[in-house]
Amino acid sequence: MVASDTRFSRIAVVGAGALGLYYGAMLQRAGHEVRFLLRRDLQAIGRSGLQVRSIDGDFHLPRVAGYATSHAIGSVDLVLVGLKTFANQTMVDLVAPLVDSTTAILTLQNGLGNEELLADAFGVDAVLGGIAFLCANRGEPGTVLHLGEGRIRLGEAKGGLSERATALARLFSLAGVPCEAVADLQRARWEKLVWNIPFNGLCALTGKNVTELLAHPPCARLVESIMREVVTAANYQDLSEPLEGARFIQKMLAMTAQMDHYRPSMMIDRLEGRPLELEAIYAIPLQRAQDKGVELPLIDMLYSLLDLGEVRG
Amino acid sequence: MVASDTRFSRIAVVGAGALGLYYGAMLQRAGHEVRFLLRRDLQAIGRSGLQVRSIDGDFHLPRVAGYATSHAIGSVDLVLVGLKTFANQTMVDLVAPLVDSTTAILTLQNGLGNEELLADAFGVDAVLGGIAFLCANRGEPGTVLHLGEGRIRLGEAKGGLSERATALARLFSLAGVPCEAVADLQRARWEKLVWNIPFNGLCALTGKNVTELLAHPPCARLVESIMREVVTAANYQDLSEPLEGARFIQKMLAMTAQMDHYRPSMMIDRLEGRPLELEAIYAIPLQRAQDKGVELPLIDMLYSLLDLGEVRG
Repeated sequence: MVASDTRFSRIAVVGAGALGLYYGAMLQRAGHEVRFLLRRDLQAIGRSGLQVRSIDGDFHLPRVAGYATSHAIGSVDLVLVGLKTFANQTMVDLVAPLVDSTTAILTLQNGLGNEELLADAFGVDAVLGGIAFLCANRGEPGTVLHLGEGRIRLGEAKGGLSERATALARLFSLAGVPCEAVADLQRARWEKLVWNIPFNGLCALTGKNVTELLAHPPCARLVESIMREVVTAANYQDLSEPLEGARFIQKMLAMTAQMDHYRPSMMIDRLEGRPLELEAIYAIPLQRAQDKGVELPLIDMLYSLLDLGEVRG
Repeated sequence: MVASDTRFSRIAVVGAGALGLYYGAMLQRAGHEVRFLLRRDLQAIGRSGLQVRSIDGDFHLPRVAGYATSHAIGSVDLVLVGLKTFANQTMVDLVAPLVDSTTAILTLQNGLGNEELLADAFGVDAVLGGIAFLCANRGEPGTVLHLGEGRIRLGEAKGGLSERATALARLFSLAGVPCEAVADLQRARWEKLVWNIPFNGLCALTGKNVTELLAHPPCARLVESIMREVVTAANYQDLSEPLEGARFIQKMLAMTAQMDHYRPSMMIDRLEGRPLELEAIYAIPLQRAQDKGVELPLIDMLYSLLDLGEVRG
């Protein structure tokens, strides 16, 4: 296989958790040159390559370019950022050595505030954001588990539908990752929050997976109430068009009903004693709502309870 | 010491957890004849008596009348009910053998609905309710730990200030338990719920004690918001006079600030894998609010999350 767009022939993946490993592997399998900044998986991947166990069929990449530092990678055409947002204070330093005047930086991180951090450091023109609908977890070092979904919606940080975003969407699609370019990235981000805000937090707080949560009628109603709060906040954000609350929520719930005992990343982070992505998924959305005079009492309660359980350094 | 009121000379304690053991021990120490229906502590107390480790001074009762069944106790003048409300389906059977036509039944259980269950079985005239402000936990079998507070407010199930309630209050007071008779028992129950609803549930859900909860500013604000919901619901219940919300809440918070790392009973129940008193403390108060058309979204959320974590038989 050959790369579909020579403009993005050199790709770096920063933050090689489940998301970074999966998308990086898909792009490499499609013929792109992908360099991974690795920490936990560096030695395992150096030794045995990268194993992808996927509902779409397992595959193995025997030779994977893993690096311990961004400086060793050097500048590339496209940076995929998959860092956990709780590590965002390191993001600019990790990305800087990868960037020259033509590099596109695509953050696939969760929540709000990520494009803004990158735009402050590298200029808004360099930055795109993407929303990944991906059920994936890390397995043993050197292995990533793709459990479901996988599609991406991406767009320019500054808004508008660019030729570059469309080309990137084609790049992913040709690599087997359904991908759509959108003009209103903020709207797509809020749509994703309609899922992330209830499920990430409630699963992390209670230790129950999405299936257990939805099987409990009071909690299924609570999920819906929280989703309605997110939709309300979203529709105060001057989006290009409002979210259609009731219909969109039913679609999200139907999609989630297909996720068999899925454990959202935040639940796994809590179970494994890592910090949670509270800033990007709760604090910034709550602040953006408050800036518009909107109260979100249930989300505020969920955020408070999650924050109480955080380990402080 | 001699008993202060011969009317209540024979006393039975049903539900000898921390609360039943502590109040029973105080009454026995004051000279009353107290018979304890015991389960976990039966053998330890039969062997070595009952040890009370109290902030007001430890004491030991070498001979304590412990029984395995209510039938063995027989009828008494006063029944103190300290059962966990999740065991309420057994309450009437446990109390029946203790009751004759003159027996007073005083339930010191948490939450709402307990007097009603007893009144249905034994007639409303037999029943009083009491609200115990007691920080106590069980220790090793044969030991109860009194960590703070201890006062009781009690009143007739049918309402009104009776001579009997006043006499019972004097009985407790003379035994070293500050006690007040109240005309409006329902109002006193709702006042106690202003504490129980936030602290019992939040501590059980998060595994944090009251001090940890109040040291976390977002959770301290959440406690206040939940307390305001309880006050709102209370003031729709046709009480004799409304709760003074803001002032009462500040008093409750100041009192709680004195409780050094106190773990409410519901938190201990959850940690030890027992069921929680969700019906009496959440479901019935929520239902009574809903009957008056009052929504309590934060309490509803808390109840849903607690219920999700319950072990189903």
